[in-house]
Amino acid sequence: MVSSKPQPPSHSKVLVLGAGNFGSCLASHLGDSQHDVWVWARELEIVKHFNEHHRNPVYLPTHDFPKNITAIGPGLPDKEFMDSMDVLLFAIPTQFLRRNLECIRPKLDLNNLPLLIFVNKGIEVGTHALTLEIIVDTCGPEIAKAATFISGPSFAKEIVERQPTSVSVASFTEDEASKAATLFHQPHFRCYTGFDPIGIELSGALKNVYAIASGMADGLGFLNNTRAMIITRGLAEMTCIGTAYGASPLTFLGLSGVGDLFLTCSSSNSRNYTVGYRLGQGEPLEQIMKTLGSVAEGVSTTEAVKTVIDELGINAPIAQAVYEVLYKGKEAKTAVRELMELPASRELQLPPTAGGPAQRLLSKLGMDSSTLHEIMHPRL
Amino acid sequence: MVSSKPQPPSHSKVLVLGAGNFGSCLASHLGDSQHDVWVWARELEIVKHFNEHHRNPVYLPTHDFPKNITAIGPGLPDKEFMDSMDVLLFAIPTQFLRRNLECIRPKLDLNNLPLLIFVNKGIEVGTHALTLEIIVDTCGPEIAKAATFISGPSFAKEIVERQPTSVSVASFTEDEASKAATLFHQPHFRCYTGFDPIGIELSGALKNVYAIASGMADGLGFLNNTRAMIITRGLAEMTCIGTAYGASPLTFLGLSGVGDLFLTCSSSNSRNYTVGYRLGQGEPLEQIMKTLGSVAEGVSTTEAVKTVIDELGINAPIAQAVYEVLYKGKEAKTAVRELMELPASRELQLPPTAGGPAQRLLSKLGMDSSTLHEIMHPRL
Repeated sequence: MVSSKPQPPSHSKVLVLGAGNFGSCLASHLGDSQHDVWVWARELEIVKHFNEHHRNPVYLPTHDFPKNITAIGPGLPDKEFMDSMDVLLFAIPTQFLRRNLECIRPKLDLNNLPLLIFVNKGIEVGTHALTLEIIVDTCGPEIAKAATFISGPSFAKEIVERQPTSVSVASFTEDEASKAATLFHQPHFRCYTGFDPIGIELSGALKNVYAIASGMADGLGFLNNTRAMIITRGLAEMTCIGTAYGASPLTFLGLSGVGDLFLTCSSSNSRNYTVGYRLGQGEPLEQIMKTLGSVAEGVSTTEAVKTVIDELGINAPIAQAVYEVLYKGKEAKTAVRELMELPASRELQLPPTAGGPAQRLLSKLGMDSSTLHEIMHPRL
Repeated sequence: MVSSKPQPPSHSKVLVLGAGNFGSCLASHLGDSQHDVWVWARELEIVKHFNEHHRNPVYLPTHDFPKNITAIGPGLPDKEFMDSMDVLLFAIPTQFLRRNLECIRPKLDLNNLPLLIFVNKGIEVGTHALTLEIIVDTCGPEIAKAATFISGPSFAKEIVERQPTSVSVASFTEDEASKAATLFHQPHFRCYTGFDPIGIELSGALKNVYAIASGMADGLGFLNNTRAMIITRGLAEMTCIGTAYGASPLTFLGLSGVGDLFLTCSSSNSRNYTVGYRLGQGEPLEQIMKTLGSVAEGVSTTEAVKTVIDELGINAPIAQAVYEVLYKGKEAKTAVRELMELPASRELQLPPTAGGPAQRLLSKLGMDSSTLHEIMHPRL
């Protein structure tokens, strides 16, 4: 089994790939924790501005970054530089990850592997692949099994203000998860480890579909009971989809599940919530997308989720309703009325056959179905 | 096995016992759904006022109740009246339930039993008994096994406005849960059935402890990431306590768990949240309790939970911190600092031995441990 190099007790050398909102805030947190940090940005302008002013002109623009962070780019660093790193933190959007990993793989030495941490969320458009699958495809199963994933309720702006925050840190490899938790853990940034990267990734992607639904209900003028219903019934759907996919239902109880769902569904800071809110108020989708100024990932995720629930035969009426509003021109209030007219049912109906897509993924990883069983039945 | 009488297809005769906030709103909902409803109140004044004005002078005072609701009291109705009812809905505070059930039991005919629905929440002070145990003690195991429980994110004020709301309806007996769901289900009041009454009851009680914690963090000035952390880590503690007690961890994913926790922790309408908020702002508990104007159930629940976590050996640092602030005079900000200083840990550590208290309860119910196993391992 491949594992990353031993980490120094302090002052790890960390390369953060990506200078977006979340990458920048995590770089700031690690610099603030006395690690030596490099941030790779694709734009020369940002690299220059950052090194002159210790500010990111695009994201968190008023935040003063710690002085022990150096920006590099726009080219990717060479193999020698990669070899000298203790940690590579991937904060590259999912849609651009595959091409970047293809360039980076030749620069990785399996006998001197940095700790690999991924914080991007979502499903790859076109392939419907999770990040784990993108890693297998580009770097092979050994590296994918050693990869760690961080997810949880964490607005970047609050992290750089040292507001108490907590995240899930998951990997198939317990040692790697522990190393990543040790690197990040501070009193104001608490890390909780787990061993279900598929569940962590799915919940991070799926929550955006339900943030759209939650925004829609608020836009239609519904109150607290209704929002709590959508969050909870959305969670039940996420758990069903996740279980059918091969994740543990209990992962959805955690920070990457309930925690992030709650944060995303109850904040007008969320782009996905905002798309739903404006749909609920009757604005057409095209107009919302034109004026939003940034991508709402839940819109493409909804299309991918529709494919997954059809393939797996999952009953997920809220996701179905969001799909019909986004892609079939159904009015939000019609979709809500139809949801309300559904009969009473059992609260949690986990699918009888589980694990199809995950089994295909696990076979790419060279893992057998007993591993899947272990993930899905964590000492209940 | 005892079961309740067959229910008519419509116009069930329902006696609601208790004219408090939640009892009144459920009576209104059932009247609004064309059932014939009687509400028993302990105060003659309320009975008179209600029948004259179709209003409850104390709770939801501006709401016009449907005309097919009749108030009765202050004496409990006689056996003949009880026999004529299809449904008894108990909306009596937990602390008064035992004495009322003792008076009502002789009026119940096992061969002509109404559907029995309980909506009170919390743990009995002194005995630490759940409602299920109070029912066993006063009415015997057969009636307790047929009892149904309703819980979920449902502000009374929003229910009477027909805001879309959803609840969990649980019983050991599937038929009884279905009957209760059929009685209540409407497009704006959705019912989801389950078979884990212990989990439903525990989550309804425990959530109030974490509502105090959430209020405390807000009172101290923390933001969204922190609130999401407290809700999620609180849920993990609730799940641990519930599992050790003998409930299914998956019940905590549902409306009575996550749903109600989310509603209670994010609303200044909640008395428990308010107690926490004022503690966070530095106000002494005695002063808060004097001026609150009503009981915050979470304060006594915290003391009961402390006993349970000590007995079961559960690691529940947030509940422990709330206990120390409420009962040991610890300052809220000290408690928070100590929580933040805890090391990184696994996200979900379900206790290795489970079910002690529930096994004692189930033996009172005449149920064996295979039943417990079925509840705790719902088709994972």
